Amino acid sequence: MSVNTALTTRLTTALGLTSPVVLAPMDLVSGGRLAAAVTHAGGLGLIGGGYGDRDWLIQEFAHAGQARVGCGFITWSLARRPDLLDVALDHNPVAIMLSFGDPAPFADRIRAAGAKVICQIHSVEDARKALAAGADILVAQGGEAGGHGTAARSTFTLVPEIADLVADTAPDTLLLAAGGIIDGRGLAAALALGADGALIGTRFWASSEALVPAAIQRHALEASGDDTIRTSVYDIVRESPWPARYTGRLLRNAFTTRWHGRESHLVDALPAAQAAYRDAQAQHDPGNLNIIVGEAIGRVRDITPAAELLHTITSQARHLLT
Amino acid sequence: MSVNTALTTRLTTALGLTSPVVLAPMDLVSGGRLAAAVTHAGGLGLIGGGYGDRDWLIQEFAHAGQARVGCGFITWSLARRPDLLDVALDHNPVAIMLSFGDPAPFADRIRAAGAKVICQIHSVEDARKALAAGADILVAQGGEAGGHGTAARSTFTLVPEIADLVADTAPDTLLLAAGGIIDGRGLAAALALGADGALIGTRFWASSEALVPAAIQRHALEASGDDTIRTSVYDIVRESPWPARYTGRLLRNAFTTRWHGRESHLVDALPAAQAAYRDAQAQHDPGNLNIIVGEAIGRVRDITPAAELLHTITSQARHLLT
Repeated sequence: MSVNTALTTRLTTALGLTSPVVLAPMDLVSGGRLAAAVTHAGGLGLIGGGYGDRDWLIQEFAHAGQARVGCGFITWSLARRPDLLDVALDHNPVAIMLSFGDPAPFADRIRAAGAKVICQIHSVEDARKALAAGADILVAQGGEAGGHGTAARSTFTLVPEIADLVADTAPDTLLLAAGGIIDGRGLAAALALGADGALIGTRFWASSEALVPAAIQRHALEASGDDTIRTSVYDIVRESPWPARYTGRLLRNAFTTRWHGRESHLVDALPAAQAAYRDAQAQHDPGNLNIIVGEAIGRVRDITPAAELLHTITSQARHLLT
Repeated sequence: MSVNTALTTRLTTALGLTSPVVLAPMDLVSGGRLAAAVTHAGGLGLIGGGYGDRDWLIQEFAHAGQARVGCGFITWSLARRPDLLDVALDHNPVAIMLSFGDPAPFADRIRAAGAKVICQIHSVEDARKALAAGADILVAQGGEAGGHGTAARSTFTLVPEIADLVADTAPDTLLLAAGGIIDGRGLAAALALGADGALIGTRFWASSEALVPAAIQRHALEASGDDTIRTSVYDIVRESPWPARYTGRLLRNAFTTRWHGRESHLVDALPAAQAAYRDAQAQHDPGNLNIIVGEAIGRVRDITPAAELLHTITSQARHLLT
């Protein structure tokens, strides 16, 4: 790798990376091939364990081969199937990322297995709890991010506030910014705001290696950043028991236009809506499918191999900061 | 001024500034003294014309003395009292900033008077309209900002998307980032994201020159960034006819806890709630008063003269970017 695609921060030093970029463990999207591609290019790839599916997890760790990768879980879902953490830990992950729930019950097992504990947080209060649980790395995620999260805070204000909190109370803890970062501008901005690196989802969702149907990727490339919404309608139709504080950001479409703000009617119409959702899944119908991307999709214009993305992001950030 | 408090961008070159920082025209908070202080320190001060009050406007332009300042208005309110634009233009403002409404009916008069047309926008669609109206400067405001705006977009994603739009379609137009910027980290991040400068409100709300009671400022210094909310409850109690897309971000307190999400009950209880609000105004009671600050209040820890703030912000950003 030529020197100008490398960028040194506390994160790269601690984890032996050449780029301070971590792949967001997007549920069923960040497979082993994508995670390995990010790792091989100098960042850290995280497999998207999500709600937890043993066979998928074993398969995707196999697809990652010998690459040093990690894995992410939805914490409240992992709490229902805690054995899935063992499946991940059996593969000697670099790190386990826990999002949306209390990390405390899992942190010791992760650390004992020699992996870093990464905790995603959405508020100052979340951050205090994650630090108390002994997180090695915090991910401060703003509401502009794709997928589940909260609308309460934005990347621009949450990152520096958590950077100050870490500096004051747990200075060895590392901090990643998440939400809205797709290029070197965003990575440079994240570092300027006090992060040690960035967790990137949406940009890699639109990579060649992402486990997303090509037709769905192409559809999303047409979107403006104004075209996403935070909503619970897909959690309702999937009967997914998300805690009330979390909603999911995704592309607006006919389904969200029909049901967002009419959630009680959706509950009443559940069987028909579920049939429509299953049809949309079978047909890759963007009008009714949950296409999970963040606000930054408005600036994504092509499907690109992950390694090329990582090198471009890193060298652009390096250029802006020096 | 020593060289290390100066930072050159397209904005500073175009307007003859030494810092790419513009004071947000906070309604009744950004008076003439604060605007003049920002201008004298090398930025651009904008008087907060807000809804429009002729006597206040004349008084505050007088307080600005000979400083080169501008003025901001709430556009839908100015449309009801268009003569107030003449009051501002009579004072040879550097710029007029229009927020929350269609700038087209006012842009030609502003330009004919020799002032720059600054248009605040909250979405890509807003930006296209403002460019069509001939804006000289766009302000891309994310939902983390204090005061009115929309929750639809965040600073982190809106700024680079509008930067790309401007570069592609109106490359001579300048771009300010707004929402969440209180220090040199934020200014550096804004510039990295593609802005030519930053519009800063909350940090100057907590300046010595701001027209805010000292007890209210001190109260706000205790807040975390988690302690603000976007709501319409104060618009309801003030019977202020804001278009539905705009809500206001301010500190959560007993009043918002009581009424947010119970807006129809508030309408039913209006006389009593209005009496409580008037009492809160008279007594500077933070439990019931609308204390209008953004998410970034969580990192504001002191009341400081505006010139000192501006110099610190500028030199920190310069340090981060070089």
